[in-house]
Parts: sequence; structure tokens; C-alpha cells
Amino acid sequence: MPVVVRNIARAPQQVIDGLARAGVATVHEAQGRRGCLASHMRPIWAGAQVAGSAVTISAPPGDNWMLHVAIEQVQPGDLLVLAPTSPCDNGYFGDLLATSAVARGCRGLIIDAGVRDVRDLTAMGFPVWSRAISAQGTVKETPGDVNVTIVCAGQTIHAGDVVVADDDGVVVVRRDEAEAVLAAAEARLAAEEAKRARLAAGELGLDIYNMRPALAAKGLKYV
Amino acid sequence: MPVVVRNIARAPQQVIDGLARAGVATVHEAQGRRGCLASHMRPIWAGAQVAGSAVTISAPPGDNWMLHVAIEQVQPGDLLVLAPTSPCDNGYFGDLLATSAVARGCRGLIIDAGVRDVRDLTAMGFPVWSRAISAQGTVKETPGDVNVTIVCAGQTIHAGDVVVADDDGVVVVRRDEAEAVLAAAEARLAAEEAKRARLAAGELGLDIYNMRPALAAKGLKYV
Amino acid sequence: MPVVVRNIARAPQQVIDGLARAGVATVHEAQGRRGCLASHMRPIWAGAQVAGSAVTISAPPGDNWMLHVAIEQVQPGDLLVLAPTSPCDNGYFGDLLATSAVARGCRGLIIDAGVRDVRDLTAMGFPVWSRAISAQGTVKETPGDVNVTIVCAGQTIHAGDVVVADDDGVVVVRRDEAEAVLAAAEARLAAEEAKRARLAAGELGLDIYNMRPALAAKGLKYV
Amino acid sequence: MPVVVRNIARAPQQVIDGLARAGVATVHEAQGRRGCLASHMRPIWAGAQVAGSAVTISAPPGDNWMLHVAIEQVQPGDLLVLAPTSPCDNGYFGDLLATSAVARGCRGLIIDAGVRDVRDLTAMGFPVWSRAISAQGTVKETPGDVNVTIVCAGQTIHAGDVVVADDDGVVVVRRDEAEAVLAAAEARLAAEEAKRARLAAGELGLDIYNMRPALAAKGLKYV
Amino acid sequence: MPVVVRNIARAPQQVIDGLARAGVATVHEAQGRRGCLASHMRPIWAGAQVAGSAVTISAPPGDNWMLHVAIEQVQPGDLLVLAPTSPCDNGYFGDLLATSAVARGCRGLIIDAGVRDVRDLTAMGFPVWSRAISAQGTVKETPGDVNVTIVCAGQTIHAGDVVVADDDGVVVVRRDEAEAVLAAAEARLAAEEAKRARLAAGELGLDIYNMRPALAAKGLKYV
Amino acid sequence: MPVVVRNIARAPQQVIDGLARAGVATVHEAQGRRGCLASHMRPIWAGAQVAGSAVTISAPPGDNWMLHVAIEQVQPGDLLVLAPTSPCDNGYFGDLLATSAVARGCRGLIIDAGVRDVRDLTAMGFPVWSRAISAQGTVKETPGDVNVTIVCAGQTIHAGDVVVADDDGVVVVRRDEAEAVLAAAEARLAAEEAKRARLAAGELGLDIYNMRPALAAKGLKYV
Repeated sequence: MPVVVRNIARAPQQVIDGLARAGVATVHEAQGRRGCLASHMRPIWAGAQVAGSAVTISAPPGDNWMLHVAIEQVQPGDLLVLAPTSPCDNGYFGDLLATSAVARGCRGLIIDAGVRDVRDLTAMGFPVWSRAISAQGTVKETPGDVNVTIVCAGQTIHAGDVVVADDDGVVVVRRDEAEAVLAAAEARLAAEEAKRARLAAGELGLDIYNMRPALAAKGLKYV
Repeated sequence: MPVVVRNIARAPQQVIDGLARAGVATVHEAQGRRGCLASHMRPIWAGAQVAGSAVTISAPPGDNWMLHVAIEQVQPGDLLVLAPTSPCDNGYFGDLLATSAVARGCRGLIIDAGVRDVRDLTAMGFPVWSRAISAQGTVKETPGDVNVTIVCAGQTIHAGDVVVADDDGVVVVRRDEAEAVLAAAEARLAAEEAKRARLAAGELGLDIYNMRPALAAKGLKYV
Repeated sequence: MPVVVRNIARAPQQVIDGLARAGVATVHEAQGRRGCLASHMRPIWAGAQVAGSAVTISAPPGDNWMLHVAIEQVQPGDLLVLAPTSPCDNGYFGDLLATSAVARGCRGLIIDAGVRDVRDLTAMGFPVWSRAISAQGTVKETPGDVNVTIVCAGQTIHAGDVVVADDDGVVVVRRDEAEAVLAAAEARLAAEEAKRARLAAGELGLDIYNMRPALAAKGLKYV
Repeated sequence: MPVVVRNIARAPQQVIDGLARAGVATVHEAQGRRGCLASHMRPIWAGAQVAGSAVTISAPPGDNWMLHVAIEQVQPGDLLVLAPTSPCDNGYFGDLLATSAVARGCRGLIIDAGVRDVRDLTAMGFPVWSRAISAQGTVKETPGDVNVTIVCAGQTIHAGDVVVADDDGVVVVRRDEAEAVLAAAEARLAAEEAKRARLAAGELGLDIYNMRPALAAKGLKYV
Repeated sequence: MPVVVRNIARAPQQVIDGLARAGVATVHEAQGRRGCLASHMRPIWAGAQVAGSAVTISAPPGDNWMLHVAIEQVQPGDLLVLAPTSPCDNGYFGDLLATSAVARGCRGLIIDAGVRDVRDLTAMGFPVWSRAISAQGTVKETPGDVNVTIVCAGQTIHAGDVVVADDDGVVVVRRDEAEAVLAAAEARLAAEEAKRARLAAGELGLDIYNMRPALAAKGLKYV
Repeated sequence: MPVVVRNIARAPQQVIDGLARAGVATVHEAQGRRGCLASHMRPIWAGAQVAGSAVTISAPPGDNWMLHVAIEQVQPGDLLVLAPTSPCDNGYFGDLLATSAVARGCRGLIIDAGVRDVRDLTAMGFPVWSRAISAQGTVKETPGDVNVTIVCAGQTIHAGDVVVADDDGVVVVRRDEAEAVLAAAEARLAAEEAKRARLAAGELGLDIYNMRPALAAKGLKYV
């Protein structure tokens, strides 16, 4: 029953790179406020901003065998995305696996479990978003799946979906929506520029967005 | 029923600034070990140490409308303090709202919910203490209240109370006690200097504070 | 009934120093994947990597009296290790206690509770691994124990056990196993060097560790 | 500084009893969706539905001394309401204190900490809403306060406020609003009867509340 | 963008009823140890054991409008399954909605948020599995979706999937796998009977399953 | 390295039975307020009150193999006590294992993880105290240890220690202290009888325990 899907479709690289530049919050808004992974997914070091095609992994609690399997499926520009089949904070991934992943062109790891060797990973510039940091080791006894659809930190992720991650967390974009989402994100960024200038000049959101009538209609009183 | 209170009393600015210099732990002790917000309130970047008059906000879960309303009420030196009406980790606040808040002289945000755009907020030097970091967006559908008394992270906060925040977290000081608390804090800081020197020289707290008789009286044995 | 044990055995200093160099993840693996404290034990600043003999403390919730007692028992190279008798996130320890501890040669603090004055502790270079950061103060009313066996963050720790801590968390090594664990850790580090080079060159863990037959035997299919 | 306030005002008994009959959810709605304590406050046995005037207690973590002090202040029909000054799950209260409280006419306990002897308390029919059940004992070393304003499980509670509790949790009503809230609650209960009958007959809320136009206006599509 | 899908496919009723009889643990094992919702999903009363076709709901935090919309889509034998778009413990559902749901033939509710009126729901025999019990009310301001694919408590659920729930929690079965899973579950139940008798007679699992050689091969020693 | 210790010492049966009668809270107090497991350990059904000699199990996350091994070591009157080597909420134990355990005379299970088949276990009258209820199944791939010293829910437990459990949770008593603890517990129960009668008659703890002078000395004021 455990399975590795070898050929997955990916979004165009320039779309993926555009989504990385747009960042998590903008991409999330651009696709209709969807796709954010749970807020417990935090970067192990600050400042990384990446996007990549998801190579998905479903693994048992406390068993990191499938990471070795998954790395073979990585193409340059991909992100590894691991969800354990039940809650676990073990350190599934460390500097040796990162060395191997980097050699395949992997851009980072999203894992709803733990990682270790965080000082080394930081020195390597290898970004990770995880639920936990833990040195607790794992076994290699039970196969799982690679490139099947998983639920990671509250979001469904298909192999080849675009995952975007930065200091705000992680968001997933469906592969076949990636181009449209990028267009919406870029439009949003452009629109924000003008608003930012007006806000910086002291104009209020209440006025820019004409909120006062709606607030009054909902009964807001000033005293 | 939703209401905005426009005129609130504030503590004298030099008192507020003195409390900022004293820092959270000292202020907390100086007022009789009261006023600390819950320890889940963490800074989004390290090193900020601020104090300000609270402009309070009560907002529904997942609705950030009242932040726009509150910013109009900010005066230079104020802090925004938001409590959701039920637990929520959405990203209520990001770089556009921060730009607007800074234009009004706002010194920072205390929010028992989530924020986003943390890289931008960090670059701006805008300090935030929050329960979560999340890109998850919010709606603008239901008004709340501004400058009413709220409970934020386990503490009652009135509009105009002085809120102090640093890397240790957040503490609230009643507006009419602020001057007395500052005096007590400064006395405490002065007293600590002498103790620090003695401790650095190797003298023990057991001796400086004369703890040995009390410990013996409570039955402590050395074996 | 409260007791302070004054004379505890310690591992040889060069063994302790060797374990510090090996780091938490390697030491944990070297002793058979045992000894990791729970992953909620996080450093208050990044980059510290230390080991020391445990001076253990059992203290009531919200009472830091025994830290003063324990510091008298510290010898150069020791670590303070505190477990509250029930869950508590109060700030038991701050810059004054750190000043005193440093004067005795203490290398750091492991505490399954809270600390405060983290900016000062960071500036002093005094490392702490804790469950929480909190300015909430404590009382000095109820004695506890020093240098008895405790459970700290899920691990039994005896006085004089070697505790190793870095950015991955904290691990405990039994005093009488420390030398053997160090030997195993150093062997492991040496073996990793060769593997790292092969992985960096693009060789897969699947091949280096000859995992393919075992995976096939467990039913893994490629599609 | 620790203080016991002896004379507190209470709401009329028939108002309190009416609020008990209305129950938590109805009272919460009737006062404008305010006043619910956090959902971690759960009854130790099912089926109790009570209301009473709050005798408030602020106590240190792991110290139940003030419960003895507070019981002297109880009048028939009161509820004890305890908030620790920092998070604690110790068993502050058991069958002996319950026996004493019942002798004073106390109707129950609301405690944002732990209780014990739950089998005895259940057999006595003494209702408790708590954060935890724990046999862990407490000390009697540090006084706190009785009948001061506290924050309990996220709500400000003044001495003499009316607290209502049932299987849905706990809600607080300001003493001087209690009569008006009761009137609103009773009106709400009456109005619900007609709606319940229509819903039971198969009519939809969509039609009873005329929601279809508003949903369409907000863009809801049927496919 | 908010959408209601009106026509969904359902599994045959006798298959659904068979899965209900098999229960959660057996169904979970029978489909290859997949499909369990997170363990925080608990029944509000003990003893219910149900299965039904999922009418799925995606709703904003603190907004229960879509429950009214969803109830119109319920057919006899269905279960309502609600996931909020971000974590929320508000009481979305109470006795009036339950009355309406029952009138449509609804068998129960699965909700990764809160419910209220639990005494009434218990008296009605209406089963609910939820994350929380809370009287906190919700608004009706923002539409969501009905009968789209959702992630609820860590599992992807499509409209029309079969959801099984009992005192062990909740499991989801894909609609088009339901018949095969039922067959496997019934086979499993039959096989368990013989094992139960042998175990009851004192035979050991070690011998029934012939585990001793495998344990020895993995290095287990008896001392 | 995995090991099963076959011959363990046990406390006298009448001492164990006496501790069961005394109950968790009394035993905990009688041994100096020590030994309570964390409060997340809750009974799956109410009303059980048991004690037994601990047959301890250390098991990997998501792997219940060692339960089969441990059951062979059970003697009539024992309790199984399982701690996973890292946090896990899987359902390690269900009705088949319970049937086997009962056949060996096992009195119950203490598990810092999950259980399933709770309806069957309840019908059997087999008591379990656990961290979670979950149908999620486990594998049988990695041996652990039986009858070694473990840390379970924050307490060190040696094989043969006496574990007492009731509706208040779980407490451990060292085997060689069991007799003395029982004597202290029985003395405590006897002493409580007189106090209960006085409290029931309306006398206050303040007077029975003569607390007023100590409270005044610590500064308590009545206003």
C-alpha cells in the first residue's frame, strides 16, 4: 500500500518565483484568503522567503524513512512537505538530510513535526518551517507515501502544489491556480503602494476605504 | 451598542517614559507583583522596550475593522492594545496598518491574537507583542469597541492605563498609580545596583538577604 | 523534609567538555536515542552550546527560594537544573541570580518554568533553556530540595548527571555513562563526515544505507 | 497589602434565581454576547445549573490559604470564584473545604485552577467548574485577596457580580445589570418557544429569519 | 465566491449503517489505518455510535450563518460536518439548530469548534463531536461554503464521504471506498471473535501472533 | 538493548489494597505531597478506584508491540503503566488487549498516550487513565522495554512501585515506602473525620486550624 509517485506536474518556475517574491500574506489574500497552514508552523531562522513545488511526504510518527525516499524525487526548486500520520514532535530531519536535499536542488522543508541540527541548518541557509525543534531521533521501520495528497497543518496539499513560506508562515496554492494567483498578487501589491503612501501621510483607513458610513449603519457610536 | 470613547485621560509623558526605562520586570515588582500579561504574549522582534498609554480595542474573532477606528484615536506616545472577544490567532495587523499607526505617533501594538508582515514590521522598527504570527486575513463586518475596559491576556486594561513592554513580555500599570509605581521602580533599580555588585563579588544571596535562619526554621537540612 | 545534598560526584571535566562539543543531537543518538528533555525547553538566545554537571533543584510553583540555596552548591562548570513540583511559568530567575551564579562559575540554567530579564541575560552571555519567558515574580516561603533526583521536562535527572544543551534543546547523560557516551559520540561524528561528503556529492541515502531492498520488502511501490 | 473586603453588595435573590433558570447561553446572549468565561472551565459533574453572588478570591499559584478566609465571607446563595495570580492546576479545593462551604450556604465553586476529591464532591452534589482536576496539594504561606476585582478565565469579575454556570460553562453578569439582563433573558426564552415549534415542524431558519436576500447580496451562489 | 453545492452523491444507506455498526476503531483499521480525525474531537455525551453522509461546511471564525444554509441541504441520514477557516471555540450550534436539523433527518454534528446547549442536546439524543463546549455566541455576517471539500480536525472530507463517530472519536471513509471498507471491517470483526476467545482463555498475543521470533530478531532480551 | 525484566519485587497485597481504599489525594498528602502524575491523565470512565504494582513499559511513539510483551509479565493485582518515548496520542490499547490483560489478573492501565474501544472497556469495567482517547492504530516494529524505570506524565516510576488511581488522577508510591505511606494515610483519614464534623457544623477552618494570627502576621487586612 505505501507508494511513491514519481512523475508529478509542476507550475512554471517563473510563476513559482513570482509567488515567492509576493510573500505569504499577499498570496493568501490574492487567492481569496485561503491556504494558510496553521500558525504553529514557524521558521527555524528569520528572513527566508521561498516558494517551490511540493514533494509531499506522509510518514508515521517517529519514523523518518520516507525522507530518504522523497529526496530522490526532488527536482531543483522543489520544497519537501512532510505531515506525520499522527501528532509527533520528533526531529525527523537534520544536517545530513539537508546536505542531501541541497545536492538535489531542494529549497527548503515544511514539516508538521520536529527538526534538529538547527544551528547547522541555519549556517547552511537551509530554511525550515516546523511545529517543533527537537533532537529526539526517529526509526526507519515503516514506509509511508511520497507525492500523495496530504493534510499538513490544516491544509490539503497535493504533490506539485506551490508552497510559499516566509516569516509569516506558510501558504499553499493549487498548481493550476498558481498563474492566476500570481497575477492577483501582483495587482494587489501595486494597489498597496498608493495606499501605503496615503497612510504614511497621515490619511486614515477610515477615509481611504470610506468606512464611516458602514460603521454608522452598524450602530457604532462615538462618545 | 458598539462604542468609541474619544477623550481618555493619560499619565504624564515623563512618567510613561520613566516606566519604559525601568522595564517590565522591575515595574511588575514595584507595583507589588501585579499586572503581568500572560506569558504567551511575545515580541515579534527582540530588543524593543516601550511604554505608552493604552488605546484599547475589543474586536470579534477574525474581524479587524476596529483597528482602523482605533488608529484615529491614537495620540503620539500611545500603544494600541487589542483583545479579541474569543480566542483567535488571525493576522489582524500588518504593514499598512502599522504605516498608518506610525503616522499618528503610535509606539507599538499589544494584541492577544495574531499579526502578519512581521518582516516589514521588523524593518520599520514597529514593535508588536502578540499571541501568534499568522498571515490569515480578517473581515470587516462587525464593529467592536474602542477605549472601553478590556481583558487582554489575563489582565484588565482601561483606556489610558500605562502599558510597558520589553523582551520579558507586557505589564499594565493603572494610570493613577503610574507616578507612584515609577518612584518605587526607580528606588528598586537603585537598590539593585548595590546588590548586584555584592553578588558579582561572590557574596551569596543567602547571606545578603539573611535567609539561613528562615530556611532552618522551615526545616531545611543539609546532608 | 526539605534537604540540600552538599557533596555530589561529577564526571571528569574533559568528558563534560567533549560532550558539549558533540552537541545535543549527537549525544542523544550516541546513547541510544535516550535522554532528550521535552521540546518545549527552548534557549532564550540562539547559539549557546554548553555542558555541565547538574545541580538539581525541586521547587514549589511560584517560589524561587531554593535557587539562592542551590547557587551555594555550584562549582565551576556546573549547570543549575530546576523542576517545579507542578506546572508553573513564573519568572524564577533573572539578572541578579545570574550575576550570583556566574560568580560561582555556573555555566547556565535549565528550568522547566519561566525566566525574566532576558535582555540582560543575553547581554551577559548567560544561557538559559526554559519553558517560558515571564516577568511574573515569585515568593520565598517554602523550601524545596537541592541535589535530589528530579524529573525535569520528562527526564529523570540526578545531581551530577551531565546535561548538554544547544539550539536543539537539552539532553541528559548519566554520570557513570558519560565517558562511554562521549566515545560513541566522537565515533559517530567521525562517521558522519564521510557520509556528509557523499551526500553533498549527490549520492542518495537510499544507496549509501542500502535501503531499497528493505523498503521493497515492506511493500513500497513506485508508480 | 492583602485585603479582605467584608461587606459587598449583592443582587436580589429572585433575580439571581431567575438567571440560574435561564442558563448560561441565554444569559450570555441576553446581555449582548458578553461575559463568557473561557471554554476550559468545565463542570466536574454534569447537570448542575446554578447562579450566585461572587465571593472573589485572588490566590498565589499553589497556595489555597485564602479559601479558608473567603468561606467566612460567604452568605447563603453565594458562589466562590477563585483566580490564581499565575497559571496553576493544583487541587486547591476538596471535600473538607466543600463541607465548610456548604455549611455557610455556598452554592458552588468557580476556579481557574484545579480541584480534587471529585468523587466526594459529586456525591455531595457540590458543583465545581474548573480548569483541571488534580490531587496535587497546596501550601498555606502567602495571603491573597478576597472580594477584590479579579480576572478569572478571561473575564473581569467584581465581588457581588452574578455568576451563572451550567453544562455550557460560566458567564458573569454585572450586579447592577442583573435585573435588566434577566428581563432580556426571559423575553428571549419566550421568543425561542415559537421558533422552536416552527423549526421542529420543518420550517427552515433561512425562511424564518429571512436570510436568503442577505446571503444573495453577499454573493452566495447555489450550484 | 461562497458557494453551496446542492446535489451530492451519497453511499448506499445499508453500507453507511454497516459502518456505524462496525465503529470507528474497526473502520479505521479496515481501511489501512487512515482517516481518524484529531483526538480533540470528543462526544458531548457518551454512548452514541452513528454514521452518515457528510454535508460539509466551511465557516469563518465566530460566524455560524452557514449552518442555516447547510441544514436545507441535509437529507435523512446525513451528518453535518463543520470546519472553521481558522481556530475558534465559539458555540456555533445549539438546541434550536438541532431542532431544525432533526426535522430534516440529520443524525448528528461533527464540528472542529464549539457547541452549546449541551444539556438540551443530550436530552434530545442529538450526538455532537466537537473541539469545545462554549456558550459564546456567533454572528451571521460572512458567507462560507457548503458541500465543498474541507479539512476538519486534520482530515480532508468531501461532501458525501461517510463519517463514522462513536466514543473513540471520528473517522472518515471515502464515498467510493465505503463498500470495500465495510467488507474489510466485517471480516475484521469476525476474525477478532476467535482471537478474543483465545485471549480471554489466557493465551498470550505473543503466541497467537507468533511475535517471539520477530522480537528476538530485533534484539529484545529477557533478564 | 531493549530489555524485559522478569522478576520484580512487589509490595504486600494488603498494603496495596489499603492504598487503593485511601485514594489518590490522601496518599499524595500522606507521603509529603509527592508523586502525582500530571493532571492530563484522566480516567476514561468515572468511579474506578484502584491500586496495583506497576508493570512498566517504555514504547516508541505509535508502536504498541511492548504491550503484548508486558502482559506476559503481569501478575494478579498489577497495573500496566506505559510511557511513550516521545509525545504521542495514538490508541495503543483496546478491547482485545484488555481481554488479555484481564485474563492475567491485571487491574487497569495507566498510559501517557491514547486508548480506544472505550465503550467496550467501560462495559468490561476495565479502568484506564490516559492522556487521550483515539482510534488511531499503531505498528509493531520497534521493541522497547518492560519493567525498567520510566518517566510517566512527569513522575519517575520503577517496576513494582505502587500506583494508585481514582477520579482525581494517579499517584505513585515507592515500593519500599508503601507500608509507611499507608499508615500515614490511614492516620490522616482518621484525623479528617473529626475535622469534617466540625466544619459541617459551621465551624471555620480559620478557627479550627488557628490561622488568624498567622494571616495577620503576614499583613492580611479586613476592610
